[in-house]
Amino acid sequence: MRLRNKPWADDFLSEHNHLVEQEPFEKKGSWKEVFGNNQPIHLEIGTGKGQFIAGNAAAHSDVNFIGIERVKNVIVGALKKVKAKEVDNVRLLNVDAQDLRDLFDTDEVDQIYLNFSDPWPKSRHEKRRLTYQTFLEQYKDVLKPNGQIVMKTDNQGLFEYSLASFSKFGMTIEEVSLDLHSVEDPDNVMTEYEEKFSNKGQPIYRCKVRF
Amino acid sequence: MRLRNKPWADDFLSEHNHLVEQEPFEKKGSWKEVFGNNQPIHLEIGTGKGQFIAGNAAAHSDVNFIGIERVKNVIVGALKKVKAKEVDNVRLLNVDAQDLRDLFDTDEVDQIYLNFSDPWPKSRHEKRRLTYQTFLEQYKDVLKPNGQIVMKTDNQGLFEYSLASFSKFGMTIEEVSLDLHSVEDPDNVMTEYEEKFSNKGQPIYRCKVRF
Ligand SMILES: C[S@@+](CC[C@H](N)C(=O)[O-])C[C@H]1O[C@@H](n2cnc3c(N)ncnc32)[C@H](O)[C@@H]1O
Ligand SMILES: C[S@@+](CC[C@H](N)C(=O)[O-])C[C@H]1O[C@@H](n2cnc3c(N)ncnc32)[C@H](O)[C@@H]1O
Repeated sequence: MRLRNKPWADDFLSEHNHLVEQEPFEKKGSWKEVFGNNQPIHLEIGTGKGQFIAGNAAAHSDVNFIGIERVKNVIVGALKKVKAKEVDNVRLLNVDAQDLRDLFDTDEVDQIYLNFSDPWPKSRHEKRRLTYQTFLEQYKDVLKPNGQIVMKTDNQGLFEYSLASFSKFGMTIEEVSLDLHSVEDPDNVMTEYEEKFSNKGQPIYRCKVRF
Repeated sequence: MRLRNKPWADDFLSEHNHLVEQEPFEKKGSWKEVFGNNQPIHLEIGTGKGQFIAGNAAAHSDVNFIGIERVKNVIVGALKKVKAKEVDNVRLLNVDAQDLRDLFDTDEVDQIYLNFSDPWPKSRHEKRRLTYQTFLEQYKDVLKPNGQIVMKTDNQGLFEYSLASFSKFGMTIEEVSLDLHSVEDPDNVMTEYEEKFSNKGQPIYRCKVRF
């Protein structure tokens, strides 16, 4: 679903080349140099309008955050949120998650967040789900051996599917929450979708898994 | 929580020795002979008042069902239900599930059901949960290598705990449902607790796992 291009989006993104990586594929293997330090790298896939990455970056200045979002008109929203926080430990990449191996070296990433990924409910679209096995193979390559994937979603079908998909791939499910907001968690940073669906009273699911 | 003994319970159970196994520990390794055929053996742990095992036995005459329930005053209810169905492919055992290895030989069981097991929500009672690792070790021993465990519960905390416990033990989670009754499933036989909680509008969780 590609919206008509906002004409000013290209300019806005290229004007902020300290926050939006303009040549992301050339940075493969060199993300520590991009950030200029040795902090761990946390990757969010499907960053959307950036509330999660902006909030997390402000709360954790000792971590570097990379946000991947393939829709240009959406990632401009993330850029605005990150700018407003005046943080420098974020890079936004306007790319598709299916190219992860061209963006990161083996073991270059310390943690991955999958936040409210598109559910693709029809069986014939299974391969597009970000927890389908071909995506898991990529995550395994770029993630450090002990690195965690943290998934949040409101979508029952996607969560059911993903738990089984992780497990069948041989991953370990370390933690499951079937109603994240039923327990106080001051460290949880809400995404836009999370705020919307939890305000409607829907439960938010979360799991933490490892290869 | 042991209720005062119903005085007639002992008599009632011993009068029905074709449905209630009186010397279960002596049958270890010989359950096929007890049933007099080679049908697969499905074991329910915590049978309660027996609605599940009675309904399943009537629906699947090609399977032998063994129900374990440690509370005498409860298992008499199961005996009544099984009797009413006039089935002969059920044996009820008034024993504790922690003695599984003294009741079954290695690989003697084809499938295990855990239905609405007591949740034991306090951390200090973790070891009593029927999905704690010492129980999983027992299930692994008595269950055939490819045998499935099917767990149903209304209890969010127990289900969250159990998914992680299965996975950390190295088991594969093959299927997860976070709202069993949202989809029509004519094969599902409801337990007493399932009926009670789903009538209240609570979601019923189910998973199918394998070693
Ligand atoms: C449902 S939205 C959720 C946005 C945000 N994470 C939140 O929780 O509010 C999913 C986002 O993921 C992006 N997305 C989906 N598949 C992607 C892919 N393969 N690569 C990059 N982004 C993707 C979509 O463009 C969309 O912005
Ligand atoms: C919450 S009830 C559920 C009963 C039934 N399965 C249902 O779904 O309606 C749990 C039952 O498991 C039995 N139980 C719990 N732990 C057990 C154990 N270690 N061995 C045998 N039975 C047990 C209890 O006595 C109780 O009857």
